[in-house]
Amino acid sequence: MILDFKKLDGLIGAIVIDHQTGRVLMLGFMNEEAWRKTVETGAVTFYSRSRNKLWTKGETSGHKLLVKEIRTDCDQDAVLITAEALGPGVCHEGFESCFFRKLENGEWQTVDTQTYDPKAVYNS
Amino acid sequence: MILDFKKLDGLIGAIVIDHQTGRVLMLGFMNEEAWRKTVETGAVTFYSRSRNKLWTKGETSGHKLLVKEIRTDCDQDAVLITAEALGPGVCHEGFESCFFRKLENGEWQTVDTQTYDPKAVYNS
Repeated sequence: MILDFKKLDGLIGAIVIDHQTGRVLMLGFMNEEAWRKTVETGAVTFYSRSRNKLWTKGETSGHKLLVKEIRTDCDQDAVLITAEALGPGVCHEGFESCFFRKLENGEWQTVDTQTYDPKAVYNS
Repeated sequence: MILDFKKLDGLIGAIVIDHQTGRVLMLGFMNEEAWRKTVETGAVTFYSRSRNKLWTKGETSGHKLLVKEIRTDCDQDAVLITAEALGPGVCHEGFESCFFRKLENGEWQTVDTQTYDPKAVYNS
């Protein structure tokens, strides 16, 4: 179960895809503790670089990511997690996927439709 | 077209998915120069952390990644690139996707089949 945490200052990239559609939902980062917690609990846990602490996705919103499958890449410095996303979306801005903006003529355009109202979830 | 290169020491994560199947092929990293080159040339270019230089995917193998669509995430510190993968696989170990190992009973197991012989491509 060895991973290489050295190449990115103690972190690995963790891509999460939806277990039903295969859609990329988000890219997060894990330190070794977040990685172990993800494997042990089955709930995707990241290391928040901005808050400098572990962050189990959904701990505020309830929108947890339940692990279905984990893969790693050739260099073993990234993981690809297939997950069941509880709730209407993983993005704190109210979208199913964090990747809701598309490059069109040199500008980022929002091309997805919100699946929930983030204010109702995060500010209540 | 603004992206945030500050959170990861001048880099952003770049997930590449196949334009036909949506499969995640690899996770690379881009500095601002690699990002601009990717957009300007339409061929995915990364920043190699181990070699400390720009690296246009396929420059050795011919297995280029031609950009079809680019998205960014809510924090604008990652991109999701939908690409046409030229050649039988993106992974230098001979697989379609770099994510060919799956976690099974606490061990990484190769679960994909090689799509080409890497020795024939990289050592010739």
